[in-house]
Amino acid sequence: MAANTYLTGIKPTGDFHLGNYVGAIKPALAAAKVYDTYYFVADYHALNTVKDADELRHSIRSGAATWLACGLDPAETVIYQQSKVPETFELTTVLTALTPKGLMNRAHAYKAARDRNNEAGITDLDAGVNMGLFNYPILMAADILIMEATHVPVGRDQSQHIEYTADIAGYFNNRYGQGGQGYTLPLPKGVIDDSEASILPGVDGRKMSKSYDNHIPLFLPENKLKKAIRRIPTDSTPVEDPKDPDTSVPFQLLTHFVGPDTVADVRKRLERGGTGWGDLKNELFEAVNAELGPKRERYEELMADPRQIDDILEAGSVRARERARAVLDRVRAAIGVA
Amino acid sequence: MAANTYLTGIKPTGDFHLGNYVGAIKPALAAAKVYDTYYFVADYHALNTVKDADELRHSIRSGAATWLACGLDPAETVIYQQSKVPETFELTTVLTALTPKGLMNRAHAYKAARDRNNEAGITDLDAGVNMGLFNYPILMAADILIMEATHVPVGRDQSQHIEYTADIAGYFNNRYGQGGQGYTLPLPKGVIDDSEASILPGVDGRKMSKSYDNHIPLFLPENKLKKAIRRIPTDSTPVEDPKDPDTSVPFQLLTHFVGPDTVADVRKRLERGGTGWGDLKNELFEAVNAELGPKRERYEELMADPRQIDDILEAGSVRARERARAVLDRVRAAIGVA
Repeated sequence: MAANTYLTGIKPTGDFHLGNYVGAIKPALAAAKVYDTYYFVADYHALNTVKDADELRHSIRSGAATWLACGLDPAETVIYQQSKVPETFELTTVLTALTPKGLMNRAHAYKAARDRNNEAGITDLDAGVNMGLFNYPILMAADILIMEATHVPVGRDQSQHIEYTADIAGYFNNRYGQGGQGYTLPLPKGVIDDSEASILPGVDGRKMSKSYDNHIPLFLPENKLKKAIRRIPTDSTPVEDPKDPDTSVPFQLLTHFVGPDTVADVRKRLERGGTGWGDLKNELFEAVNAELGPKRERYEELMADPRQIDDILEAGSVRARERARAVLDRVRAAIGVA
Repeated sequence: MAANTYLTGIKPTGDFHLGNYVGAIKPALAAAKVYDTYYFVADYHALNTVKDADELRHSIRSGAATWLACGLDPAETVIYQQSKVPETFELTTVLTALTPKGLMNRAHAYKAARDRNNEAGITDLDAGVNMGLFNYPILMAADILIMEATHVPVGRDQSQHIEYTADIAGYFNNRYGQGGQGYTLPLPKGVIDDSEASILPGVDGRKMSKSYDNHIPLFLPENKLKKAIRRIPTDSTPVEDPKDPDTSVPFQLLTHFVGPDTVADVRKRLERGGTGWGDLKNELFEAVNAELGPKRERYEELMADPRQIDDILEAGSVRARERARAVLDRVRAAIGVA
């Protein structure tokens, strides 16, 4: 077992935005320089919400293409499709037999669904809840444990995911981890990136998020990207007046797309006066477009010839399965079905 | 898809009794003459209760050996190990995303567990309930649907199993069953054997069942079988008096182990008087031992060289997987992950 396996799930969706790029994709690509990295397109998690075959098929490719276009190197990172590592679902079945229902009753995502029903005045709090949502923490634990992942990036508000995975691994280890044919599932650590650097503001200054509708899509065509940046609200301070960079959304965004020297220079010009919000937005557009333009082009290329994506996912899935198979074989021996 | 695929699960246990033999094993062996038959050792269902590896490993072999010893012909019936057809667990994952939680909330086995907690004065009604129990109907549906089974034997009180499987298949079919790449999961029929012939009384006259502790184990050694039959309670009617065969447990048992001519003869002798309960029990022992003696011997042989059992299960599992793979490939295409 490698002591430094970093695993993360890739949403199968074409809906990535600048916040995902800065907060998830870039850190994960940086992690590939330090860890053994395994990134999977979470198609069976997506199935809980996406029930249209064409949409799901497109989303799997689009999700993978986004990460590949952003620089994920399949020679360095194993990128695979969750549903192509079926060992995951057998491990899910095993872990299901060991997991108390009470743990699931307390899961945040499930409780949030019940709260929404309650607020809507729906008496049956389980209305509209599918078993995929309810069982989600077990499938997620299996995703992690089948690869013996040691490091899993999670958002600040997602630490329960890792706690649950550790709990579920613990049930297994307590039963089967000792002695002779025993096998111990490694407990993963959550990697919580709390640094300012990973949180991108949306156009309204709150964290960029689809649910706030304050986001800028990642691969907007150039002219639409320009418009989206121009529409970021700013105050009416005249061009010649001094401005506060630290309360300026375009400036905060800019810091993620230019080097420290440029950041310092722009800060000085804003504080001194003589640089207008329009000028700042032009600089922001140029910087974002310079970084994302080639990636957008690569993304379009990949999506125009999806066989490339399929081949990369297939090759990655074969590698991921080798690892998963070894883990599952040990699990099967430990529980007594082999 | 074959229009007549009969599927049943084999409990992985060495604890079969005469009631199982008459009520489940013999009818299933008879079905093999009429249907394409697929019988699986349900090791992952057993995992919900058996958490000891050696016990589970022994039970899988013992369950398979029991059926083989009773006459299951692997050339005629595909006998396989549930955990060796992993397509089942991927289908479970797919079906989980389609199944409303409300359906599981109403499942009999789960509700019975809550009732037991309630009766014991336990406030947390989910105490001691594991997710394997809660998810059981989905795994069972996948067991059936992955083999495109059309006929599934169920006890009188188990019709919910088939209803749930049909419900869950229906969720899938409603979403994915139509048009182009659509695929329709066949709905299974429950085969309920309501005939007297399949219900064996226990030593107390109620249906033979482990939970009533009124059972006679299937492969008791000869001397113990004799003792168990001698201990069946009877009244003190003297040998020479007439007796009522229809209220006599030994007579009822005998009818399952001898031909109609012998049944008629014994009935006449009991009604006439002159045949004592002891005589009847001797005849019963001889009949049961004549039928089960060679099977017991074969069972012992198989268990003494478990490689035979393992090889048969392995070969059957390969055949079952071929069929399962074809179904899963169609499911994967229909939902959009392939």
